[in-house]
Amino acid sequence: MTPRFQSTLERLKAKIRTIPDFPRKGVLFRDITPVLCDGQLFRFVVTLLSQRYHRKNVQKVVAIDARGFLLGGAVAHVLGAGVVPVRKGGKLPYKRYELAYELEYGSEVLAVHQDAILPGERVVIIDDVLATGGTSVTTAKLVQTCGGQILELAFLVELLGLGGRERLGNLPYCALIQL
Amino acid sequence: MTPRFQSTLERLKAKIRTIPDFPRKGVLFRDITPVLCDGQLFRFVVTLLSQRYHRKNVQKVVAIDARGFLLGGAVAHVLGAGVVPVRKGGKLPYKRYELAYELEYGSEVLAVHQDAILPGERVVIIDDVLATGGTSVTTAKLVQTCGGQILELAFLVELLGLGGRERLGNLPYCALIQL
Repeated sequence: MTPRFQSTLERLKAKIRTIPDFPRKGVLFRDITPVLCDGQLFRFVVTLLSQRYHRKNVQKVVAIDARGFLLGGAVAHVLGAGVVPVRKGGKLPYKRYELAYELEYGSEVLAVHQDAILPGERVVIIDDVLATGGTSVTTAKLVQTCGGQILELAFLVELLGLGGRERLGNLPYCALIQL
Repeated sequence: MTPRFQSTLERLKAKIRTIPDFPRKGVLFRDITPVLCDGQLFRFVVTLLSQRYHRKNVQKVVAIDARGFLLGGAVAHVLGAGVVPVRKGGKLPYKRYELAYELEYGSEVLAVHQDAILPGERVVIIDDVLATGGTSVTTAKLVQTCGGQILELAFLVELLGLGGRERLGNLPYCALIQL
């Protein structure tokens, strides 16, 4: 890593805003919107993620609702891939695969359009933050249900100590920074 | 327009899927996800939108929750601008400007982080579909509350006959296709 790269990475880390008690008491929310708002940092992030999959023949970038859309669309565009939204239940209008997963409080359903990923297609999954890993693992299962081949899951931030990497198990993943 | 451009535009139009009675009875939903899933068409859309604002010194691309994020992130990246999410109430964690607007049934709140757009910054607002214009006009007001200067609102699709263009009034806008 060059010193310039290292200093940009530090600037990125410093731009992530910590909000206590959001969305509920006791949760320390990591707000990445200041990174997205900064044209230079946003370009840095998208470039890093895209370079990682350059010439890997990625056909679909799967972006997770909703902040993952902001990164996933940009990365898909650079790679010349299609972008596939994975959304919460009831948001996608066409034939879906759906999968429920447990949250700390209650459960959530994620869905993907059945025709969004063709069998054998090479897929990268993108989200902003890896926390407990529930959303990521469920998304990976949906991609596998479509027959997609997961090259990697990529995150802007990995929050350590919340069990995300353990829950991902053997699924390959990367995160630009750890907090 | 070259014949090739024209034929790509026709292909794009043909890829938009019409779903009757979604999200409720009587609504004809236009599903743009098949366009996004197609790497070539997605690149075509993002390139068209980005070229339109090339050298216009756009500092912020405001993307509307949630499908607008998929397009807005990509356009912001090409332009070297920051991307600013406008989200439904309760989703943004930091100091917000919020604005309620009327929907066919009930009302909805949209919000933007107060520090996401600086006074005088040059802004393009991006969403997938212009329908009744309620979301778009409310987003434009939020941008103006921050002091942003709106160059244009850009849509992939304008649905004619729903009053969107009338509701936008003097706000400049463009749409790649009309349905």
